[in-house]
Amino acid sequence: MGNDNSHPFTGPVCPVPLQRYPQILLAHGSGGKLTDQLIRELIAPVFSNPALDPLHDGALVDAGGVRLAFSTDSYVINPIFFPGGDIGRLAVFGTVNDLAMCAARPAWLSAGFIVEEGFPMEDLARVVRSMNEAALQAGVAIVTGDTKVVERGKGDKIYINTAGIGLVPGGRKVSPAAVRPGDAVLINGAIGLHGVAVMSFREGLRFSSQVESDCAPLNTLVEDIYSVSPNVRMLRDPTRGGLASALNEIAREAKRGILLDEHAIPVTEEVRAACELLGLDPLYVANEGKCLVFVSPGDADAVLSAMRKNPAGKGSAIIGTVTETHPGRVTMKTLVGGDRIVDMMSGEQLPRIC
Amino acid sequence: MGNDNSHPFTGPVCPVPLQRYPQILLAHGSGGKLTDQLIRELIAPVFSNPALDPLHDGALVDAGGVRLAFSTDSYVINPIFFPGGDIGRLAVFGTVNDLAMCAARPAWLSAGFIVEEGFPMEDLARVVRSMNEAALQAGVAIVTGDTKVVERGKGDKIYINTAGIGLVPGGRKVSPAAVRPGDAVLINGAIGLHGVAVMSFREGLRFSSQVESDCAPLNTLVEDIYSVSPNVRMLRDPTRGGLASALNEIAREAKRGILLDEHAIPVTEEVRAACELLGLDPLYVANEGKCLVFVSPGDADAVLSAMRKNPAGKGSAIIGTVTETHPGRVTMKTLVGGDRIVDMMSGEQLPRIC
Repeated sequence: MGNDNSHPFTGPVCPVPLQRYPQILLAHGSGGKLTDQLIRELIAPVFSNPALDPLHDGALVDAGGVRLAFSTDSYVINPIFFPGGDIGRLAVFGTVNDLAMCAARPAWLSAGFIVEEGFPMEDLARVVRSMNEAALQAGVAIVTGDTKVVERGKGDKIYINTAGIGLVPGGRKVSPAAVRPGDAVLINGAIGLHGVAVMSFREGLRFSSQVESDCAPLNTLVEDIYSVSPNVRMLRDPTRGGLASALNEIAREAKRGILLDEHAIPVTEEVRAACELLGLDPLYVANEGKCLVFVSPGDADAVLSAMRKNPAGKGSAIIGTVTETHPGRVTMKTLVGGDRIVDMMSGEQLPRIC
Repeated sequence: MGNDNSHPFTGPVCPVPLQRYPQILLAHGSGGKLTDQLIRELIAPVFSNPALDPLHDGALVDAGGVRLAFSTDSYVINPIFFPGGDIGRLAVFGTVNDLAMCAARPAWLSAGFIVEEGFPMEDLARVVRSMNEAALQAGVAIVTGDTKVVERGKGDKIYINTAGIGLVPGGRKVSPAAVRPGDAVLINGAIGLHGVAVMSFREGLRFSSQVESDCAPLNTLVEDIYSVSPNVRMLRDPTRGGLASALNEIAREAKRGILLDEHAIPVTEEVRAACELLGLDPLYVANEGKCLVFVSPGDADAVLSAMRKNPAGKGSAIIGTVTETHPGRVTMKTLVGGDRIVDMMSGEQLPRIC
């Protein structure tokens, strides 16, 4: 085992060199293998600096003795209004959550709008109001912004970028390098809701009970976790690319294995049914209100019960454990008793899901 | 005079209510009257908070005793490569400059890419390298980012958002409210270069000598200004909407008049000729490396000579003065000896200029 590269379990590798793609494909935005490759081979090496290089959800910087987290995301979701949310809520909670995953307390957001000519003023007003409600809910202020307009057919209704600043309390440090064998892996509820809500709405599918996006802020959940444990190793929100891609990234960076228990992973009946119909695997479907938590084994139960008391964590569960074996790999004990390798997402499963 | 609304000199008012526009027009992104109206009537009142309400180039926030400036801009310029720059340089310098205009020292930037499917990988690499060179030149680090891909025909090659954080040294405070009658108004060089460079390139116009964008970082210029004067009242980079729109915004906020001397405003022969050909007024044409400086009259000469020593300020000039009369209005002593009211830009002069 160990680091023998001939062994099939020695970590995901990018399957084809970037040069094989002379043009950007939709899959480069999917959050899976090609996104990862694009960032690691074309973008990150050029910008390389100590704050960027870890490629976390946000960067940590020191502003005259004050530790800040800084993060950004652009939102291009289609449709802009969907069951359980809209592009405005998503843009606020998405950046709030990226900051929370840095163990920061999100404080200030920027909002940059790229609006297509002809976009209804009423819809813009609705999105703006929704962003404000989301900011109030998450306890952050939108303090600066920008608006650009592009011609018809050079955009799609509205794209929103948010960037955010959070304050990182002393003593908190999450990073894949902090993950140790035996650590418990927790999640705060059922997976796949956001992706299924958007995809089924987009495809015009109707189920007996409509699936709603889990779009929600995670910052109070993170505070509740820290209130019972100083031994949080790593936090990550499994958005584009789903649970599987997020865990693969962590396993690779941590140079540890992650063993999941399929039984323990919360999936609703509705999501399971919709995924079967849409040909999707819930492990790869985007979430917008889910948080993966790595904690020391001794604190796992306390963290689980703290999470369950938070409105965003009622469905929390311990879903896996960190192993010394299979470094860089995610494996899963399946319902039928076998072991399955869970790879990073390939190709474009769900375009413009966020 | 005073605040009598019947008087023609009592500040620009939005000519038509927002409700008259049921849809977003290109002019809503022009940086002129409609952009101003959209932000003031639809966006800012909803997000209202003390850091946002001044509607400066960036927000000032207090992070545990450290004063930060925070700013964002999205760049949708067409074409993405133009004489004197490209969208990457523009995206870096634009946000660096917005921070510098808050009297901050720019430190960290985020980069959010929205790429159209089919965009050449080589062009993406070129833009990314250009951003890195610009960041090195300006002395900032790009520390966090995001990449999204949209389908062909739902974007236009590449749009880039940058947000930035700067540190504001103690004692510095710029704001329109600080502007006083008698203050000198300075600019660091010739106006209209960016807009003319992009427009003539876009229209396929060729002049005897090609006009290049003035796209440049302004942070060392601001440091040089502060090194000779603590009495800086206001800084603003006149980008979209040009010199005229920026000065109108300041005059309105300051509730003061601004009297310009047309003789003193630096305009190159090439820009003048191109503007005549294109039917543009240089006062309304976008700049990307220009800075308006308001200082106490006693410090004006020292600031002027400090600015002229900076590579970004060789063409600096005192172009006007702040008046008690005509509050909210910009007027100009013209070359032919008359007085002209210089209003904020109306309509869409130069779409997607930044």
